[in-house]
Amino acid sequence: MSPTPARITAVDTYDIRFPTSRGLDGSDAMNPDPDYSAAYVVLRTDAEDGPEGHGFAFTIGRGNEVQVAAIHALRHHVVGRSVEELCADPGTLYRDLTGDSQLRWLGPEKGVLHMAIGAVVNAVWDLAAKRAGRPLWRLLAEAEPEWLVRQIDFRHLTDALTPDEALTLLRRGREGAGRRTARLLETGYPAYTTSPGWLGYDDDKLARLARQAVADGFRQIKLKVGADLADDVRRCRVARAAVGPDIRLALDANQRWDVAEAISWTRALAGFDPYWIEEPTSPDDILGHAAIRRAVAPVKVATGEHAQNRIVFKQLLQAGALDIVQLDAARVGGVNENLAILLLAAKFRVPVCPHAGGVGLCELVQHLAMFDYVAVSGSTEDRVIEYVDHLHEHFLDPVVVRAGHYTAPTAPGFSAALRPEALAHYAFPGGTYWSAGPDGRKGQSA
Amino acid sequence: MSPTPARITAVDTYDIRFPTSRGLDGSDAMNPDPDYSAAYVVLRTDAEDGPEGHGFAFTIGRGNEVQVAAIHALRHHVVGRSVEELCADPGTLYRDLTGDSQLRWLGPEKGVLHMAIGAVVNAVWDLAAKRAGRPLWRLLAEAEPEWLVRQIDFRHLTDALTPDEALTLLRRGREGAGRRTARLLETGYPAYTTSPGWLGYDDDKLARLARQAVADGFRQIKLKVGADLADDVRRCRVARAAVGPDIRLALDANQRWDVAEAISWTRALAGFDPYWIEEPTSPDDILGHAAIRRAVAPVKVATGEHAQNRIVFKQLLQAGALDIVQLDAARVGGVNENLAILLLAAKFRVPVCPHAGGVGLCELVQHLAMFDYVAVSGSTEDRVIEYVDHLHEHFLDPVVVRAGHYTAPTAPGFSAALRPEALAHYAFPGGTYWSAGPDGRKGQSA
Repeated sequence: MSPTPARITAVDTYDIRFPTSRGLDGSDAMNPDPDYSAAYVVLRTDAEDGPEGHGFAFTIGRGNEVQVAAIHALRHHVVGRSVEELCADPGTLYRDLTGDSQLRWLGPEKGVLHMAIGAVVNAVWDLAAKRAGRPLWRLLAEAEPEWLVRQIDFRHLTDALTPDEALTLLRRGREGAGRRTARLLETGYPAYTTSPGWLGYDDDKLARLARQAVADGFRQIKLKVGADLADDVRRCRVARAAVGPDIRLALDANQRWDVAEAISWTRALAGFDPYWIEEPTSPDDILGHAAIRRAVAPVKVATGEHAQNRIVFKQLLQAGALDIVQLDAARVGGVNENLAILLLAAKFRVPVCPHAGGVGLCELVQHLAMFDYVAVSGSTEDRVIEYVDHLHEHFLDPVVVRAGHYTAPTAPGFSAALRPEALAHYAFPGGTYWSAGPDGRKGQSA
Repeated sequence: MSPTPARITAVDTYDIRFPTSRGLDGSDAMNPDPDYSAAYVVLRTDAEDGPEGHGFAFTIGRGNEVQVAAIHALRHHVVGRSVEELCADPGTLYRDLTGDSQLRWLGPEKGVLHMAIGAVVNAVWDLAAKRAGRPLWRLLAEAEPEWLVRQIDFRHLTDALTPDEALTLLRRGREGAGRRTARLLETGYPAYTTSPGWLGYDDDKLARLARQAVADGFRQIKLKVGADLADDVRRCRVARAAVGPDIRLALDANQRWDVAEAISWTRALAGFDPYWIEEPTSPDDILGHAAIRRAVAPVKVATGEHAQNRIVFKQLLQAGALDIVQLDAARVGGVNENLAILLLAAKFRVPVCPHAGGVGLCELVQHLAMFDYVAVSGSTEDRVIEYVDHLHEHFLDPVVVRAGHYTAPTAPGFSAALRPEALAHYAFPGGTYWSAGPDGRKGQSA
């Protein structure tokens, strides 16, 4: 320990927007023209040659400045804290942030404020993993079960998962962890791809990308649905013809339907043997998802990318409302809350297939899925991480997907850092891309 | 119609904070030291001598600037719109705001962004009521049922309430509406008071204020509980002794407990004959509220002030999770969404007892409760509006509570406007109160 312990000296924020709406990448039934964006945060320290912590909330354009303002509103909890104490126990900061008695009125634990907490908490985990010289998934997989349990806030969870049950799950997860780590480093973690299926793509592009996905080694692809039933029938036919009968075809309605409509629409597409229907209705509608699941089986129900916190996941599991837990790395309160969600899923024996895409969500969530495999669920059966081939080039430690598998990251940290040139180019509105004006931007792409 | 139709020319925002934490007013088990605040919005028009529209989101201090930023992020939907069209159909703007495909990622329909939508939508209703020369409750009560139904977004609701069912409820509500309006103008709407029961008050103050409440004509008071069981037993004894056996004693845990704890704690206080237990657990926990309700009957379960939107209210009702719907005027997406919540409550025959207090929540919500009485539920039986005697002096058209009843407002509008001198004094951080510094503020009070 140095005589003057290192402190967090600044919480710097950036409004980063990529002009993805120009290519209809990311278009779905509720989000026709997203500009994938990050409310980005860097924790700076006074440690000599010490690393920084990077994190972000993902948004799709307008309102990213509100998300940045929310991160900024948390800085008084972070600046001045001991780096060593923070990294030894991120759970203390996580509780301080979610427990801020004035800020929690703006949630509690949901929406803009909660995503801001997730960005800051994830930045701390990035810092902790870098200081430990480990990729985050290994730091988590090698941590003591007792310590991991202390990272979780069990408030409002204990009717479904107690600290003792969590400890039992984590102790059981240690059995064979070394063997699974070796296997993971060798073969990676299965992925599926959403790249062929955006609503804005025409049938030829859909068919071409779907065939390419199979050639690239993916065993599952995903199509956006929900805008027009006749279009969906046609697109499902095109996709199924392109990939053949053995590839899993997932469908994603992005919250478009009411309960009855979700049931009838899904049944109308059942002939194409869809594997799951994702976000069939409002992410807040636990009872609605349960009703849909009962009605559309054997098609599975998947949801979670917009589930606001662990309490919603708890209820989705208690109500038997879903077959697939699609946690998101940047929607809830960071790694700590996702530990709770992974353990809830394990308790209820529901597989986790994380949501990804956007800006950097693949980079983050691979660590959580790999930790889940090595130290919680112990299995990759029926488990896949979403993969979207967008914007990875802007990251310092981008995901590597080979033969339909995420390669396990080996660099220390949470893979969260954008390249400095991306921060300079896509800062909104002052970065070189946006300040060039419409003419200056012509011919450039994200 | 004038040759150049009036337009909205500006959406002006204000960060207003009252230093209520100095007196422990508003202290409860989760909110020990709130500074009651408003993210305040004024819609300005170019109508000659025309009124402005006022609205706000309520917060409790830190983060109010984030709420202001969220309102600011909505302005492009509002500026330039025809005042006449806006006021003739606020539902179109409401749908445009909740449907903004990029902004909805920050919710959807929850937290900071949704409260911002509520502030703007409520400001439109204030403007519409002023232009109609009616207090809002009368504008709503006199509106055509078909028009009211068009003000509602039924997306994600139709498994519990269809437009046809809503129309039937509203048509039935018209029967006897004239008689109820007359009665309301004569006797007002029953209130209950939370002023005696803040956690920060000592037993003598509690007893004195409880006796005063009864002397003032209130038939129900409310106590904050949940920090310490022995304290709660003592305070319930003090309060029950002060008010006698015939006054309803409501308890409010402000989300403090897990499910099992909520049940045991409520049972431990059952001997004091509490009328309801409010927010016994997380506002997101529909299944938890249902389990608590089954276990603590005949004590009623009340919740809603933090229920994020109509979809959560729908499920609370579907699950049989509550006895009392405590809608809040400034948490959800404004009047339009509260119309849906009032009709859901009517469909499930659960009484509405609105949440109030804070900054201006009494001023707003009285209009919704009075509309409910005149044109939806048709009854004030087991229905009371919360009353807290704070900060009303800062409003241009403050609530008037006499003999335990809210007097029906008669001034045109939604009673939302703060006095100009309050805007100038409590603007944060530049207003005369906050810029004076700690010394300059001594001796001043909210």
